[in-house]
Amino acid sequence: MRIVTRCLSDKAARFVPKTGVYPKGYVVGGIHCGVKKNQESLDLALLHNTFAEQEASAAAVFTTNKFKAAPVQVSQRILKESKGFGINSIVVNSGNANAVTGLQGIKDAEDMVLVTDSVLESKSSSTLVMSTGVIGNKLPIDNILSGIPKLALNHLGNTHQHWIDCAKAICTTDTFPKLITKQFKLNEDTYTLAGLCKGAGMICPNMATLLGFFVTDTPVTPSALQQILKYAVDRSFNSISVDGDMSTNDTIAAIANGAAGGEVIDLNASCGERYAALQKEITSFAQELAQLVVRDGEGATKFITIRVKDGLSHKDAKSIASSVANSSLFKTAMYGKDANWGRILCAIGYADVTNGNNSVIPSKTSVKFIPIDGSSPLQLLTNGEPEKVDEERASEILQDEDLIVEIDLGTGGGQSADFWTCDLSHEYITINGDYRS
Amino acid sequence: MRIVTRCLSDKAARFVPKTGVYPKGYVVGGIHCGVKKNQESLDLALLHNTFAEQEASAAAVFTTNKFKAAPVQVSQRILKESKGFGINSIVVNSGNANAVTGLQGIKDAEDMVLVTDSVLESKSSSTLVMSTGVIGNKLPIDNILSGIPKLALNHLGNTHQHWIDCAKAICTTDTFPKLITKQFKLNEDTYTLAGLCKGAGMICPNMATLLGFFVTDTPVTPSALQQILKYAVDRSFNSISVDGDMSTNDTIAAIANGAAGGEVIDLNASCGERYAALQKEITSFAQELAQLVVRDGEGATKFITIRVKDGLSHKDAKSIASSVANSSLFKTAMYGKDANWGRILCAIGYADVTNGNNSVIPSKTSVKFIPIDGSSPLQLLTNGEPEKVDEERASEILQDEDLIVEIDLGTGGGQSADFWTCDLSHEYITINGDYRS
Repeated sequence: MRIVTRCLSDKAARFVPKTGVYPKGYVVGGIHCGVKKNQESLDLALLHNTFAEQEASAAAVFTTNKFKAAPVQVSQRILKESKGFGINSIVVNSGNANAVTGLQGIKDAEDMVLVTDSVLESKSSSTLVMSTGVIGNKLPIDNILSGIPKLALNHLGNTHQHWIDCAKAICTTDTFPKLITKQFKLNEDTYTLAGLCKGAGMICPNMATLLGFFVTDTPVTPSALQQILKYAVDRSFNSISVDGDMSTNDTIAAIANGAAGGEVIDLNASCGERYAALQKEITSFAQELAQLVVRDGEGATKFITIRVKDGLSHKDAKSIASSVANSSLFKTAMYGKDANWGRILCAIGYADVTNGNNSVIPSKTSVKFIPIDGSSPLQLLTNGEPEKVDEERASEILQDEDLIVEIDLGTGGGQSADFWTCDLSHEYITINGDYRS
Repeated sequence: MRIVTRCLSDKAARFVPKTGVYPKGYVVGGIHCGVKKNQESLDLALLHNTFAEQEASAAAVFTTNKFKAAPVQVSQRILKESKGFGINSIVVNSGNANAVTGLQGIKDAEDMVLVTDSVLESKSSSTLVMSTGVIGNKLPIDNILSGIPKLALNHLGNTHQHWIDCAKAICTTDTFPKLITKQFKLNEDTYTLAGLCKGAGMICPNMATLLGFFVTDTPVTPSALQQILKYAVDRSFNSISVDGDMSTNDTIAAIANGAAGGEVIDLNASCGERYAALQKEITSFAQELAQLVVRDGEGATKFITIRVKDGLSHKDAKSIASSVANSSLFKTAMYGKDANWGRILCAIGYADVTNGNNSVIPSKTSVKFIPIDGSSPLQLLTNGEPEKVDEERASEILQDEDLIVEIDLGTGGGQSADFWTCDLSHEYITINGDYRS
């Protein structure tokens, strides 16, 4: 598996934080337990909530793929049975997805939960389990089950390095670990968020990253947390694309232990303002995290924001943005720094929209490239009529890593959506052509 | 434009016929008129029906993309106004798609029709027009309009070489011209079909090849021809995938001049048997032609049939086959000769199906690789349980250019669908990264 040797790249220097302020009451860690071949590759991660004064709240969003991996099925059941109360741990292995592994796979996932609960002296079924890696191979479960006590007893902590190790231990083809933190205020109370995820290939709407979780010391009920998570994921992890494939394992989970005190945020009207503020914080946090996945798309050399404006509905706007973001021809043109904007229109034209000819009106559609350095945008199409494009300027803009493609649908509906994607490169083919070797 | 220099490949030797028997009453040809830069590249094609004893019937299927290229809009209008009667010519330029070219684009397409009608002394609007190539650039219309008389007056004929030239003149990134012929009998009458198309990139369901047309000397009414064409295209050009993008220009047209005589085939019940026989002939002919497009998928090194069996409906079966055929991860694994069959399941799992959990039942799904050399299939998954796969045998099977992936959904619905696709290779990225350069 080439995965790990690629985990040190120049992107690491740009996107991996050197330090972090972490939420109260959590310990984390990562070790090598023997799923990946390379002995220096971390492949087992654990997060544990140590704040015992009140029950933590948990929420999660899972893949909609019909072939749900065993850990997805097990975590869904545990979360449902707990009603989101008292989930204290998340255990993750990388290197093997435990997907399409039949009944043995379910037992293996359950055993990971059982051993984690037992070694951390938690009540039963208070752990969510995740796996990522190759599909269709049975887990080397003995290595994992003997690794969990070792990790739980000797390698958990709350230093920045512990968080980095945890983030590294969930990587597969990622070239850098994805970890961010954020402090924010709700009225006078200060709270902290920490989040990590892994992405690379198989990234697509309806569960973008393979795996991710974030934790906070904010006090919030499970039902409020679930609703906020769903809202945030829809606008972050479900609005990114690397190659358009939706994995069997995709899971985003959140735990809030309330360790920083303050009034509990609920769905009740009385919490409306704090609820809205928390939703905003978590959504922008999730976007920042999800964007790291695009930055590290397999073989990606570009980071492209598809911004659709004035759609008839949010759903239409997102569908059109997604169609462009997932077009192999568009993504390949971006890799080639080729201002072949016809491919953008082509992808708008075959997007799956609900309102037929009212959703996309060629004679009202405008498209421009917006450089992120603040220099002037380059208009490509105005109300369906092509502009005489300054190719030199286009080429200049496409030299940059970042680009915003703005599509104004001109429908009068006023709904917009952002979608983030990367280019499709030679390196993507190389990575995925022999992923298992 | 690299297009033409790539038009001579080893695939040409395998897939381009050395000779052909052509339907009665047609002349065709292709020349260089100055759309493509390379002076040796043919870029203008013309087909003309010379059989004047009865009015020819025409039919066509067009792209559903909302940004329909100017020639698509013009051809749709002409076909509609003619009700399928008396269309005698098809004129095509390659190298420029005349798409998203505003009002000027419409006028250019209309002028191509006008000049063709005029020089061939046809009644007005008896020509269909097609264009293929880069989107968003205005046509070099003067070169085309002066090329049409030159081609029509001096370079039309009915030899094999004329047909080859015509097929070459519609190529863009194709590495070989796509031309096939077939003779068949309806009762005692012998008829002939000739078809040509161009494909390469942007190939996807709901109009697979960018352009194609076939002609026959069978006598058939326009309404019967239209219905047969739609049926055939659904099972051929709409069941292939190269990169999942649907073009602004996709058009498949057919002309039947009845020059070989015999009873006219209509939708009437009395023609039922001959109608069915003709539909079968045209469908298998269209499949053979469409498969050439996959053989020549941009950068393709493999030809893969996705065969879905026992689906709840034909639509579901086709949607699932399409989902696998369009998965970048699956296609890249095929390029890498990697039996990463988990990616097949993954793509089945996110396919857009109508009957939810009844359409895909993981515990009833089985998958196998079927080599086309007649050696034994390799079972990968049986009723949702993974098989212990003989990797050596898998690798052996994947060395072959051709492969059938058979997915048995086990729903009891008994509906099946075939879909044809190629792999996703380094060469695809190279071709599309700088298509316009």
